[in-house]
Amino acid sequence: MEENLIEKLIGAFMSLSGVGYKTAQRYAYQILDEDEEVANNLASSIIEVKSKIKICKECGNFSSSDLCDICKTRKSKIICVVKEPKDINCIEKVKNFDCVYHVLHGCISPLDNKGPDDIRIKELLSRVSTNNYEEVIVATNPDVQGEATAMYIAKILKPLGIKVTRLAQGISMGSELEYADEVTLSRAIEARREL
Amino acid sequence: MEENLIEKLIGAFMSLSGVGYKTAQRYAYQILDEDEEVANNLASSIIEVKSKIKICKECGNFSSSDLCDICKTRKSKIICVVKEPKDINCIEKVKNFDCVYHVLHGCISPLDNKGPDDIRIKELLSRVSTNNYEEVIVATNPDVQGEATAMYIAKILKPLGIKVTRLAQGISMGSELEYADEVTLSRAIEARREL
Repeated sequence: MEENLIEKLIGAFMSLSGVGYKTAQRYAYQILDEDEEVANNLASSIIEVKSKIKICKECGNFSSSDLCDICKTRKSKIICVVKEPKDINCIEKVKNFDCVYHVLHGCISPLDNKGPDDIRIKELLSRVSTNNYEEVIVATNPDVQGEATAMYIAKILKPLGIKVTRLAQGISMGSELEYADEVTLSRAIEARREL
Repeated sequence: MEENLIEKLIGAFMSLSGVGYKTAQRYAYQILDEDEEVANNLASSIIEVKSKIKICKECGNFSSSDLCDICKTRKSKIICVVKEPKDINCIEKVKNFDCVYHVLHGCISPLDNKGPDDIRIKELLSRVSTNNYEEVIVATNPDVQGEATAMYIAKILKPLGIKVTRLAQGISMGSELEYADEVTLSRAIEARREL
């Protein structure tokens, strides 16, 4: 009996990505060792987040009300398209840059059977058509799926006469040329700027 | 508001050992993406384990009743002393070896202010005095704390005329001499056996 309860908890932890049996076992035994409060806090946070957080009608970010805080308060002519809600946090860390967001909840990926209709591109199109945005920045990841999605978005939005941009690619701040891969370097050379 | 609920869940995940902000964030956003069922299963398993699992009166293993399954069903003259409940699983994997267990819930560690009175050594002493055990195998980890604990247990049990043994130390099965550290090698040489 006791084995089963602990094994059930280990199994539940293993449903988290990147958590194998050993890690799940460590978490489970830690929960057993921990104060009641810590365990209850984790359990109640999980339930609370699942029951209260929904998706913002406007941008697709996670939100506890119909509109998220950003859509409620911010007016901007620039809309930044990201793959996932957590990407919003990354861009929000950049100071002095104000934009509203659109979360796609995925990227186009034919290998995973994900086409344009499976992500929130229709919603983006209708937002752009009905609002007066000046620019759409596509901030999907610089990988194959992200690039394909960016291309697709540019293709459908450009006929509407809207400016579509993409985050610049190049070598990162503080890195060394020696460790930059060839594609990154070639893009950095292509996009070189005059000083 | 929505930030706070998600941040609270991230904070709750960070209370697990070895989980930093990025990992906790990954878990939290996965919980948000996951089916209700997966999240509820994790939350309810945590609560269930915390409310139903207690410590076996006899051996100190985790158990849902006063006596754990092993203490209830197994009669053995050999008692195996381990540091933590999960160590029991490891030894149970060895077939053809029947023993009962005693969980210390820690090891002697002066640096962490943990003396013999802070772990379940008194309980071991009273079990050994009142029962008719033939042998105590000390299966604490082969590190400084585990060794110190083994020494201490041997010192207090030997006067009672009971055989106290320690798991053999040497090179592990399938490893290479080249990668064995000096202490392990020297112990393996000391404890060499005739073929």
